[in-house]
Amino acid sequence: MCNNCSYTIHNHQHHFGWDNSIVPVETVTPGTTIEFHCVDSSAGQLTADSTVADVGTLNFDKINPVNGPIYVEGAMPGDALKITIESFKPSGFGWTANIPGFGLLADQFPDPALTIWKYDPDTLEPALFGKEGRVPLKPFAGTIGNALGEDGLHSIVPPRRVGGNMDIRDLSAGTTLYLPVEVAGALFSVGDTHAAQGDGEVCGTAIESPMDTVMTIDLVKNANLKSPRFTTPGPVTRHLDSKGYEVTTGIGPDLMTASRDAVSGMIDFLSATRGLAAEDAYMLISTCGDLRISEIVDMPNCLVSFYFPRCVFE
Amino acid sequence: MCNNCSYTIHNHQHHFGWDNSIVPVETVTPGTTIEFHCVDSSAGQLTADSTVADVGTLNFDKINPVNGPIYVEGAMPGDALKITIESFKPSGFGWTANIPGFGLLADQFPDPALTIWKYDPDTLEPALFGKEGRVPLKPFAGTIGNALGEDGLHSIVPPRRVGGNMDIRDLSAGTTLYLPVEVAGALFSVGDTHAAQGDGEVCGTAIESPMDTVMTIDLVKNANLKSPRFTTPGPVTRHLDSKGYEVTTGIGPDLMTASRDAVSGMIDFLSATRGLAAEDAYMLISTCGDLRISEIVDMPNCLVSFYFPRCVFE
Repeated sequence: MCNNCSYTIHNHQHHFGWDNSIVPVETVTPGTTIEFHCVDSSAGQLTADSTVADVGTLNFDKINPVNGPIYVEGAMPGDALKITIESFKPSGFGWTANIPGFGLLADQFPDPALTIWKYDPDTLEPALFGKEGRVPLKPFAGTIGNALGEDGLHSIVPPRRVGGNMDIRDLSAGTTLYLPVEVAGALFSVGDTHAAQGDGEVCGTAIESPMDTVMTIDLVKNANLKSPRFTTPGPVTRHLDSKGYEVTTGIGPDLMTASRDAVSGMIDFLSATRGLAAEDAYMLISTCGDLRISEIVDMPNCLVSFYFPRCVFE
Repeated sequence: MCNNCSYTIHNHQHHFGWDNSIVPVETVTPGTTIEFHCVDSSAGQLTADSTVADVGTLNFDKINPVNGPIYVEGAMPGDALKITIESFKPSGFGWTANIPGFGLLADQFPDPALTIWKYDPDTLEPALFGKEGRVPLKPFAGTIGNALGEDGLHSIVPPRRVGGNMDIRDLSAGTTLYLPVEVAGALFSVGDTHAAQGDGEVCGTAIESPMDTVMTIDLVKNANLKSPRFTTPGPVTRHLDSKGYEVTTGIGPDLMTASRDAVSGMIDFLSATRGLAAEDAYMLISTCGDLRISEIVDMPNCLVSFYFPRCVFE
């Protein structure tokens, strides 16, 4: 896949959780291009043959592995890694699940649910959902970050100031990401690759999909970044926006409640207009719909909108 | 301006605050097209000749007038108005202010600030900001809604389930908006027209700009909408996205704090890279930058991103 790569980090070279005592799998100089072969966020527990029963028996000690860590020579606390996200080579298989206890509406969706996706990894044509849905694809890495300064093992689940499980849909090919460094060598890892996701990842999972990715790791000395930032080379929603959007809103004094209301409203809307079962709508919109804060200053109420791209069904 | 309009609601035909006892300025049948001549959200207190001193002496009893109310025949509680937003004819003048006590970072920006904008109302070419900035324009109405079922005078500031001061950037020409009805006749009003705004309206104001707008008001019986929803006819960010985005993030257990951190990060970034004064960056990004919820499920932390369109300076 990668002619310019100096290293390949294979799919068994991963770890679970962040711990700055994990021995690096490779030590590189700034400017090095690396290929990562990433497994999916279930670490292979879910496959193309899985059923919903397999969601209920997932081993959460083996969730969300990340390839690495990579020790970057010269990186010191206060610096930033500059990650040029070069390319993705997806596998063609993916899954989206409602995992009980996880997701924005976990209280409303207590039962496990599973969607298995098959897509063309070469053309990246939209993936079929049911008989009528077509979800545009844009591969990215959901988890990408450095080790924390604090010693010990830290859960992989929450993102933190050094990055991690950020699930930012636009960390796709061409984007440049800057990540704060807190330990010598930075100890960079990446994984949790997604074939598609909407802003928010509302059901808790995206199109979780094993894939290879190529990234160039560079170093910015004394960047003193407080949290990750990134630069996109061009538009970020043109794979989704050609037909416009259906939009529901949540309005109230609390952004979380407003977000939940906007998402519930969209599930109701798609159930009513497309005949989708609620859990199917919930999984579908997690892969392609976007949570946006339309208004955050007109106190005491804010307004969160959920944007569902009409191209999925039109 | 409007050949198909059956009524014109002139700029003096406005009210302050929502009150279902306000006498309608017009009674219309469903399907009627109406032109509204809207003043700006200061009700003319700020003009092209205003200075920052005028921000400090604003009379808040005369803020955010809305044209109306319109009584729609046959509209009853449980119905929805279907508003087809036909067109806007902007004035060419606008203002953006930091109003002390208002805005997402009110604690960090205690002093009044003011930007006066002049733009071409015919071409709607991007409006100049300082020597180098160019802000793309997309006119819309910040406040659009129906009267509340609860009697009495209600502040115009917060949006509510019947709409109101929603400040949704995409309620622009071509969009169809559905608003819950809570009183007989709906009592629809509109105003607070903006020439441009980013998602969130983070400094508390947009490019506040008087303009005329044409809307067709129709009725959907027994819609039983819980909150407003809308349909856009096509892409919503193509006026902004051609050069991509600079993006800052806020990460933490609370969406509001994460939003504040993302916005603060962008102000710091633009101050460092463009030499902008912090209050100028704050006002600028309110007119063109977007708050998006990238991740809301990876507990205990969520991640809010602030997207600044690079086309403003490139």
